Amino acid sequence: MNQKKRILTGDRPTGRLHLGHYVGSLVNRVKLQEEYETFILIADVQALTDHFEHPEILQQNIREVTKDYLAVGIDPGKSTIFIQSLIPEIAELAVYYLNLVTVARLQRNPTVKDEMQQKGFEQNLPAGFLVYPVHQAADITIFNADLVPVGKDQLPMIEQTVEIVRRFNTFYAPVLVEPQAKVGEFARLPGIDGQAKMSKSLGNAIYLADDAKAVEAKVMRMYTDPTRLRATDPGHIEGNPVFVYHDAFNPDKEEVADLKERYVQGKVGDVEVKKKLTRALNAFLDPIREQRAKYDQDEKAIDEILKEGTRRARAVAQETMGQVRRAMKIDYPFQG
Amino acid sequence: MNQKKRILTGDRPTGRLHLGHYVGSLVNRVKLQEEYETFILIADVQALTDHFEHPEILQQNIREVTKDYLAVGIDPGKSTIFIQSLIPEIAELAVYYLNLVTVARLQRNPTVKDEMQQKGFEQNLPAGFLVYPVHQAADITIFNADLVPVGKDQLPMIEQTVEIVRRFNTFYAPVLVEPQAKVGEFARLPGIDGQAKMSKSLGNAIYLADDAKAVEAKVMRMYTDPTRLRATDPGHIEGNPVFVYHDAFNPDKEEVADLKERYVQGKVGDVEVKKKLTRALNAFLDPIREQRAKYDQDEKAIDEILKEGTRRARAVAQETMGQVRRAMKIDYPFQG
Repeated sequence: MNQKKRILTGDRPTGRLHLGHYVGSLVNRVKLQEEYETFILIADVQALTDHFEHPEILQQNIREVTKDYLAVGIDPGKSTIFIQSLIPEIAELAVYYLNLVTVARLQRNPTVKDEMQQKGFEQNLPAGFLVYPVHQAADITIFNADLVPVGKDQLPMIEQTVEIVRRFNTFYAPVLVEPQAKVGEFARLPGIDGQAKMSKSLGNAIYLADDAKAVEAKVMRMYTDPTRLRATDPGHIEGNPVFVYHDAFNPDKEEVADLKERYVQGKVGDVEVKKKLTRALNAFLDPIREQRAKYDQDEKAIDEILKEGTRRARAVAQETMGQVRRAMKIDYPFQG
Repeated sequence: MNQKKRILTGDRPTGRLHLGHYVGSLVNRVKLQEEYETFILIADVQALTDHFEHPEILQQNIREVTKDYLAVGIDPGKSTIFIQSLIPEIAELAVYYLNLVTVARLQRNPTVKDEMQQKGFEQNLPAGFLVYPVHQAADITIFNADLVPVGKDQLPMIEQTVEIVRRFNTFYAPVLVEPQAKVGEFARLPGIDGQAKMSKSLGNAIYLADDAKAVEAKVMRMYTDPTRLRATDPGHIEGNPVFVYHDAFNPDKEEVADLKERYVQGKVGDVEVKKKLTRALNAFLDPIREQRAKYDQDEKAIDEILKEGTRRARAVAQETMGQVRRAMKIDYPFQG
């Protein structure tokens, strides 16, 4: 009666997670796992759609991402953390979905178009990239996800999934759950270079696993207000990364208010603002580092958590594939 | 040292097999199984790329096709007969291959282009159809096939597979076998309506499972020489279906020579030619029908043969996927 709704979320294991991930999704997931049955997919197959030359990075990154999850408070008792490529049923389901989607429809998918442009694919678009929305539909539906937290830019992917679900349920039998996008307030953290987004590929990230010295060094070279040449010049706060970070991570609201006031008046130097930010960030990261350190010394525990999550996820995927095959009337008695 | 080469072949289970299949491939397979380790794939997933609205036909057709195989002499002790959709590793492998092929390359594939035109796909080309060559590459390579018997029209599919194998072996590690096309003399039998090809969809086929009366009725309405209006008109033999069938199935070469001679001279009626063809075809089909009848009474034997073949094929596929994952360095210790 009171069954929890299921949520599907995840990350591509292309590197360690950073403060941008924390603000944009991790903090939210730690809350959501109390209310929802949470499935967290580590999307190694998806990572290969544009890193296919370097699959050897995946194994270590899967461990790093998992440590980041656990360090920020994702509880493997509440959230099922699992590896995409170890659920071959996703690929199997995607093959059936591929018949329900036209090439023209995929080429019109706005998210695909945007990412094609970002990644500079033109004539040499890999087929895996074009059909990725179909695989994502399989990711979501094989776990019967009710909700998928997404940013607005990812809405077309959910629409595509809903289309596939409706076609399948109409053609065959209504066995698939139609997912809903959970469009949240996805706070976006600027990079330390002032670019709108913190990202590994831009090289402007502070990682959850960075030590205190690394954080200090990164804050000290952080972009601030380019119009302010001297500490006595009045500065701007709006969109100024140093203050965006203070707002996000400094719990001492009075200190932040005081710094802002003096900054606008030209009565505080960047160094003081940055030293206080360094202190706040390190205070925020200390307990995360402490948790992480435990797992750094116990890689086996990580492997066990991933095995158990993958085992649980696979059982759900197999159950769904059974329903899919029954719906399609291809649940043959010829299983080898 | 003296290991047999492996051959991969197969059919889509979209209907019973007919004399065209016999002449074009079955008779050849019966011979090849003595010399090669033969894998026969019943391509139900491929059948869905243009029959996705009717998956319910597949189960019965899989049984019918298998009975046809056994009835003509394919020996499940020598040939591994198995079901494509029950080898999910094929889908899994295809996903990795999709990153190694561009959309533009698929769109240039001549076989895809021809079939697109035949099937009237234009703007509404299903994605599954476009990427089918990639799945076919997975079909072939997951079983380490050395040879694939194909007609000339299918050569581009083998070329595509070879390209994928070379890219994979270069990027990762040389674990995949590069297949060769075995372009044979694929005799093509005209339809009973005189069209160049016997095919279920053209409704011009004589099935291996047709009874004697059905064969007689089909032969009696068989297309002959349209320029010959009376039995006393001189007739043409070249390309005349009745004589193509006599040549293929009547072992009494003297009778055939005599009929041809009289036909050219206008000294024999169609009815006599057709009666003798009916007799020859039924004599050819009788032992096939007899074998088939045994299996009609023992569907369980069919299911067991398919189970055993699928089990054997799956073991090979899993072994190859293990090598593929090792080559890509994604053989994680996280298996659930």
